[in-house]
Amino acid sequence: MTKFDSPKLAREVVVRDPVHGYIHLDTQVALEVVRSQEFQRMRRIKQLGPTAFVFPGATHTRFEHNLGVYELARRISNLFTDKYPSQSTGDGLWDPSENLLVQMAGLLHDIGHGPYSHTFEHLFGTNHEQIGQQIILDPSTEVNQALSKVDPDFPKAVASVIAKTYPNPQVVKLISSQADADRMDYLLRDAYFTGASYGEFDLSRILRVIRPYEKGVCFTANGMHAVEDYIVSRYQMYQQIYYHRVNRSMEVILHHLLKRAQYLYQEKELPVTPSLARFLAGTWDLQDYLKMDDGVMETNFSMWTESSDPVLVDLTKRYLFRRPLASAKINEESKQLLPQLKDLIKKAGFDPDYYTGVGSAFDEPYDAYKPSGKNANSQIEIMQEDGSLIELSQLSPLVKALNGTLQGDERFFFPVAMLKQADFQQYLKNGESLTKK
Amino acid sequence: MTKFDSPKLAREVVVRDPVHGYIHLDTQVALEVVRSQEFQRMRRIKQLGPTAFVFPGATHTRFEHNLGVYELARRISNLFTDKYPSQSTGDGLWDPSENLLVQMAGLLHDIGHGPYSHTFEHLFGTNHEQIGQQIILDPSTEVNQALSKVDPDFPKAVASVIAKTYPNPQVVKLISSQADADRMDYLLRDAYFTGASYGEFDLSRILRVIRPYEKGVCFTANGMHAVEDYIVSRYQMYQQIYYHRVNRSMEVILHHLLKRAQYLYQEKELPVTPSLARFLAGTWDLQDYLKMDDGVMETNFSMWTESSDPVLVDLTKRYLFRRPLASAKINEESKQLLPQLKDLIKKAGFDPDYYTGVGSAFDEPYDAYKPSGKNANSQIEIMQEDGSLIELSQLSPLVKALNGTLQGDERFFFPVAMLKQADFQQYLKNGESLTKK
Amino acid sequence: MTKFDSPKLAREVVVRDPVHGYIHLDTQVALEVVRSQEFQRMRRIKQLGPTAFVFPGATHTRFEHNLGVYELARRISNLFTDKYPSQSTGDGLWDPSENLLVQMAGLLHDIGHGPYSHTFEHLFGTNHEQIGQQIILDPSTEVNQALSKVDPDFPKAVASVIAKTYPNPQVVKLISSQADADRMDYLLRDAYFTGASYGEFDLSRILRVIRPYEKGVCFTANGMHAVEDYIVSRYQMYQQIYYHRVNRSMEVILHHLLKRAQYLYQEKELPVTPSLARFLAGTWDLQDYLKMDDGVMETNFSMWTESSDPVLVDLTKRYLFRRPLASAKINEESKQLLPQLKDLIKKAGFDPDYYTGVGSAFDEPYDAYKPSGKNANSQIEIMQEDGSLIELSQLSPLVKALNGTLQGDERFFFPVAMLKQADFQQYLKNGESLTKK
Amino acid sequence: MTKFDSPKLAREVVVRDPVHGYIHLDTQVALEVVRSQEFQRMRRIKQLGPTAFVFPGATHTRFEHNLGVYELARRISNLFTDKYPSQSTGDGLWDPSENLLVQMAGLLHDIGHGPYSHTFEHLFGTNHEQIGQQIILDPSTEVNQALSKVDPDFPKAVASVIAKTYPNPQVVKLISSQADADRMDYLLRDAYFTGASYGEFDLSRILRVIRPYEKGVCFTANGMHAVEDYIVSRYQMYQQIYYHRVNRSMEVILHHLLKRAQYLYQEKELPVTPSLARFLAGTWDLQDYLKMDDGVMETNFSMWTESSDPVLVDLTKRYLFRRPLASAKINEESKQLLPQLKDLIKKAGFDPDYYTGVGSAFDEPYDAYKPSGKNANSQIEIMQEDGSLIELSQLSPLVKALNGTLQGDERFFFPVAMLKQADFQQYLKNGESLTKK
Repeated sequence: MTKFDSPKLAREVVVRDPVHGYIHLDTQVALEVVRSQEFQRMRRIKQLGPTAFVFPGATHTRFEHNLGVYELARRISNLFTDKYPSQSTGDGLWDPSENLLVQMAGLLHDIGHGPYSHTFEHLFGTNHEQIGQQIILDPSTEVNQALSKVDPDFPKAVASVIAKTYPNPQVVKLISSQADADRMDYLLRDAYFTGASYGEFDLSRILRVIRPYEKGVCFTANGMHAVEDYIVSRYQMYQQIYYHRVNRSMEVILHHLLKRAQYLYQEKELPVTPSLARFLAGTWDLQDYLKMDDGVMETNFSMWTESSDPVLVDLTKRYLFRRPLASAKINEESKQLLPQLKDLIKKAGFDPDYYTGVGSAFDEPYDAYKPSGKNANSQIEIMQEDGSLIELSQLSPLVKALNGTLQGDERFFFPVAMLKQADFQQYLKNGESLTKK
Repeated sequence: MTKFDSPKLAREVVVRDPVHGYIHLDTQVALEVVRSQEFQRMRRIKQLGPTAFVFPGATHTRFEHNLGVYELARRISNLFTDKYPSQSTGDGLWDPSENLLVQMAGLLHDIGHGPYSHTFEHLFGTNHEQIGQQIILDPSTEVNQALSKVDPDFPKAVASVIAKTYPNPQVVKLISSQADADRMDYLLRDAYFTGASYGEFDLSRILRVIRPYEKGVCFTANGMHAVEDYIVSRYQMYQQIYYHRVNRSMEVILHHLLKRAQYLYQEKELPVTPSLARFLAGTWDLQDYLKMDDGVMETNFSMWTESSDPVLVDLTKRYLFRRPLASAKINEESKQLLPQLKDLIKKAGFDPDYYTGVGSAFDEPYDAYKPSGKNANSQIEIMQEDGSLIELSQLSPLVKALNGTLQGDERFFFPVAMLKQADFQQYLKNGESLTKK
Repeated sequence: MTKFDSPKLAREVVVRDPVHGYIHLDTQVALEVVRSQEFQRMRRIKQLGPTAFVFPGATHTRFEHNLGVYELARRISNLFTDKYPSQSTGDGLWDPSENLLVQMAGLLHDIGHGPYSHTFEHLFGTNHEQIGQQIILDPSTEVNQALSKVDPDFPKAVASVIAKTYPNPQVVKLISSQADADRMDYLLRDAYFTGASYGEFDLSRILRVIRPYEKGVCFTANGMHAVEDYIVSRYQMYQQIYYHRVNRSMEVILHHLLKRAQYLYQEKELPVTPSLARFLAGTWDLQDYLKMDDGVMETNFSMWTESSDPVLVDLTKRYLFRRPLASAKINEESKQLLPQLKDLIKKAGFDPDYYTGVGSAFDEPYDAYKPSGKNANSQIEIMQEDGSLIELSQLSPLVKALNGTLQGDERFFFPVAMLKQADFQQYLKNGESLTKK
Repeated sequence: MTKFDSPKLAREVVVRDPVHGYIHLDTQVALEVVRSQEFQRMRRIKQLGPTAFVFPGATHTRFEHNLGVYELARRISNLFTDKYPSQSTGDGLWDPSENLLVQMAGLLHDIGHGPYSHTFEHLFGTNHEQIGQQIILDPSTEVNQALSKVDPDFPKAVASVIAKTYPNPQVVKLISSQADADRMDYLLRDAYFTGASYGEFDLSRILRVIRPYEKGVCFTANGMHAVEDYIVSRYQMYQQIYYHRVNRSMEVILHHLLKRAQYLYQEKELPVTPSLARFLAGTWDLQDYLKMDDGVMETNFSMWTESSDPVLVDLTKRYLFRRPLASAKINEESKQLLPQLKDLIKKAGFDPDYYTGVGSAFDEPYDAYKPSGKNANSQIEIMQEDGSLIELSQLSPLVKALNGTLQGDERFFFPVAMLKQADFQQYLKNGESLTKK
């Protein structure tokens, strides 16, 4: 296998980061990738999309997150190089010649994301993973040009790590697994910017106990509780931040307003910026995609507030000025009441197609911890003193409790105005759950 | 004087804030102002503009800052109500019927800001203070409608506090003085989001020692060091964050690109969104202003990258993709070298009008601490046990050192490419200062 | 029932505290109790005893902890007074005339503790709860004198809250329950001083959602995750700090050295300070008890290093100079190997009575969370919007997993030197567990 | 010069530390020194002595501080080894073979301290620097035995670094200079444990900009503000923590009670533990010194509360139960009033020899920043890009303001009871300063 290297900078460039202290850009290629157009564009895409409507501090962007994942990959690979250098092929230790590769894969793992990823993808058929591969592999991008200076095969190698097809599982698992640099960074970062202290875990301890083994990365026995704490932090962040009902409600509105815009674009004229127009028309290319960011979307929304279509005007104002839908938990049984409720909503003057929605948090774009999944490799393993591995949930009662379960809820979203109608309200218990009268 | 009151909410609404823990919206009017279109719009205007190009965490917006100033005004006015309630007019203590007024003035003190305030104002002749007054006083705004429910005279009172014409100096000084809720919030908030720990000061201690007196607010003697620490934090934040050379360099580029756009708009067609067009044409109104935000500006920049004007294309790319100018410190003597340097820059193919600039940090839109200024009231006073006042710099050697001085520097900005030219480089000492060869 | 009140101080005294910011002593009685001899003495008794041998930062004392519990009781009772004031007897809300009582009970709940409480109690038959009652009720103490100034019946009332016999369960539960001011303070404080970040939980959020109900205190529905997080923090602190194997090993040594001293005291002369002598002789009184602190114990140990008894000398040096025993996990099955192991230890020259021990962490002096216990009242209840209560483990999968289980382990302690003996080592698996060869 | 080395441990031992995260004991000698009797003894000596009477969290000991200085010396020497390795003698860079030496000097720099160092030294003529040298050099100590395993000359080398006679100034300055590992640790540590946030400075940034030069250590130009911030933190800690009037008042009491005990010891019998007796008798040796700690002192005080001498009883109770003297600022002029005041105090029944004192904070055992002192080497130098050095106060207006000044005050201490006497009170202005009536 080709081994990749990039000259160390005579003087490393550091970036102040409130989560990790400093990001150290110490190779030529790291600096050039960060300075590329495609990477700089991520400054304009919020990491958590509409979550800032609920937690106003959450204005941080994918730019900082990608830097953070890079920094963790850098620290871990340097640490593996010091503590666990491979002596011979197949000894399950770390090959220092993988350092640059894992660092660049960390830096670029999310490069394909656009604004409001999941809603956007759903409506326009884009795929951030494919586009990410394209950005890395297409010779027209500055990212590709920077990587290619290392070696003509380097972009392909980086792309394969992100696509999880790279042969060395240690490299792949550092970027994508139940306890990877990606998740470590976003949990800490999202906790910092939302102000949610329960998302914090002891990174310095995790870094003390992480180690390579032949099938990936694992943790030494004295670090079991640190890893357990990390899993609990994940659970808390999902339940309290990522799955927050108001957050999800804003995504419902976003989806409906873009759906309405698609419809209007086909019907008649809609004021729209050129690149978004090509998405509505289905004729977009990579250059259009690279122009998409949160500001472009909101600028279009802002223009739509002067549209002649009252539904579009109302939905965009609800989005821009944060006027969420109300919601109630539903289950298989109470779902049967939805037709009745939609009737009431219709009678109140709201088109159910645009003013209601059903959203399951399990469908949310963040994968919960499932060590029992098909992919045996994705388990978190704790290495005993004798080198044997024990799967985490065998050791931790907390992780065992979460193991293989689905946490979250399914909700029905509807206009807040309905809460004032007595015939509607009788379906709600504790203002929270849909229930038979 | 009319005394203003708003019903307390049966259940207060809280907003999680990483700086203050929670923002407590406990009155009807606070909730309604926050939910207004004009207030929600501030979510799309970064507090520190281009500073995020240097400190990537600094993506926080004027929305959170205004909430933070409100929360501090709320805490301080509640605390004054408990500890220093006025017993009779003119006793120098606090009149609890001012609480609502000072809280709303805190919430709305920055409501007139648009994107990149200073550059924008300079080029388009807008004035965020006048516009702020208009937003509060114009019956068409949701802000005015919310305030008017308290009392028809309430908007005028709120506006007068922000304009510093309200008769009670205690209320005015809590919002605008050398140690007001505004600065306390932005120093702490900017420190948190940039990750600059030197901007932190001991807010809990400041809140313990702040108190009203007849001419405003002052601090008790046991709190001298806490106030001293706050002043030092201000100094550090200005020198290290607000006046950062790369930050200022990005503002130079921003200014030049907008100037070029103005020129091109008059000459020929420039792709531009409708509301920004009206600024370029000089025909804007309040509704246009309220549509301006960071995203709208950047969306226009993004469209301009496809312009046929190479200067505009280059400048917008430099801005969008963070390609700052280099810079060197100058003084009265070394300024005389600028014509020679500009000649070299011109020879290298850069139009000095668009690729150089002179920027003085003293001109920056943040006023430094000047207790010796004409306005005697703006001094920070320390109240002794016998009720007498001593001005802070009389007590603190550190504040005395800063008192009345100008800190900062003046810089000449130029293309990075010039650093590689030997005949240019000879003018630079330590890569930092312009100097005779 | 008599209602108790104490004059508010004209100027409250504050104490800087790294955990809560400031402790506010705002009543005459709080100030006098804190200044009493019996309270000041707690400055000389470490909160976590030998834990500082493992986590060197853990030098904090019972003095600060008692202040912290007082401060939390003060904040919660003030908050209940504001948000949930009782309108009529039996309405399940809070009677503000209980404030002073609950604050003093918080301040004094641990006043009976001596050095190394559990070991000391076990060997000398003292009981910190009885002694605490005595300190509060005996007219000779400064604590009693301070309390009696409020009302002659006040000491009795304070003592009854701590003894859990006071009739109002809200007052009792704030001081002693699964989620009381005591535990909230010690978890946060112990986490701060040990540096164990996993012990942190979101106190500001807990204080937002705590509320009174007729049978005690509970939490509102929107605070479920905050309470869940608190329970997980408890679990982590117990597993990682309080039950740390080295910590327990030092307690085994401490127990053995005091046992040896008791034996020697009866046999022949032992150099010993007067008050400790009376404990060894079994003739101690309250004044002797109040002279006991960590320093007195260690001063005696220091004198014993010159004893003529080699076992005592060795054990005291092991304690003073931190030379812990090694240990291995045992279970019912592996326990059967202990006689064989003790034989090996004896052969190696160590008296098993003084150089081995069996310690079960479940016996440790910190009670784990058992909501299913006999006392139904001790459950944590989450109040729904309609006022109904749901027990926490019904709502949280994490708490359900911990509910009613015993976490921890049982260990066999033995001299480190044994680890070098091959015939001994074969009984150990992964250096951790006792196992059949 | 002999170069010293110690085997790296196969598995480093880490100690959790709330200030630095982890202390890494990675060499055999570091582990053995930490485990020595003489080092473990520092667990029983508080870093800040009576300061815990004012800031109750300040119970941290010299043990943790010494570990912290070691850890900083370890990090800095490792960092110098990576970034600035010497290529040839005299090139002003860092010789990695000094690493072990500087680490051990950091670990042992305070090993000679006893309880209440300054008061103790003053009364008993001990000298912690001499005793520290003795502990390191005397073959009877476990510290010496551990060091000697590295090389028979190693103890002498370590002692010479601490005595500042070692030839390489880089090694000496890392341990003793205006910006050394010692001060960096104690400022951060004392801030953490007292809860004084103003003592914090940005260690991560200091570590980024520190570098060796031929005469010691200096800082790169981009780090000027970080160093400036550190100096300001020092100033704040001295003014607010170390020189706190109550802290100093407790030291006055301590001094007087020990003086009284000395007097009584000579006059008649005083109950006293054997080792302290030898200090009172002037016959102590190193073994006695090594038995002294805070607990031994307090145990003696506790015994003295039953003395037949009422002055001793009163003074020890004042100390043990924190009953400070009051105080007022004095200057050359107001000092002339002291005889009159002492007369009043005498009339009130207090012996001025034991109940008053004059204490100058400038005499306090913490040296303030004096870059203009005789020793030119002790200045803090900022290295410019061209390698030239500029002294810090030339660059920073804040440091310039503090440069060469004496901060602090002189105070007269007297019984609190005097504050109630009108004829005494008239001498006090604002309850703070002594002044003519």
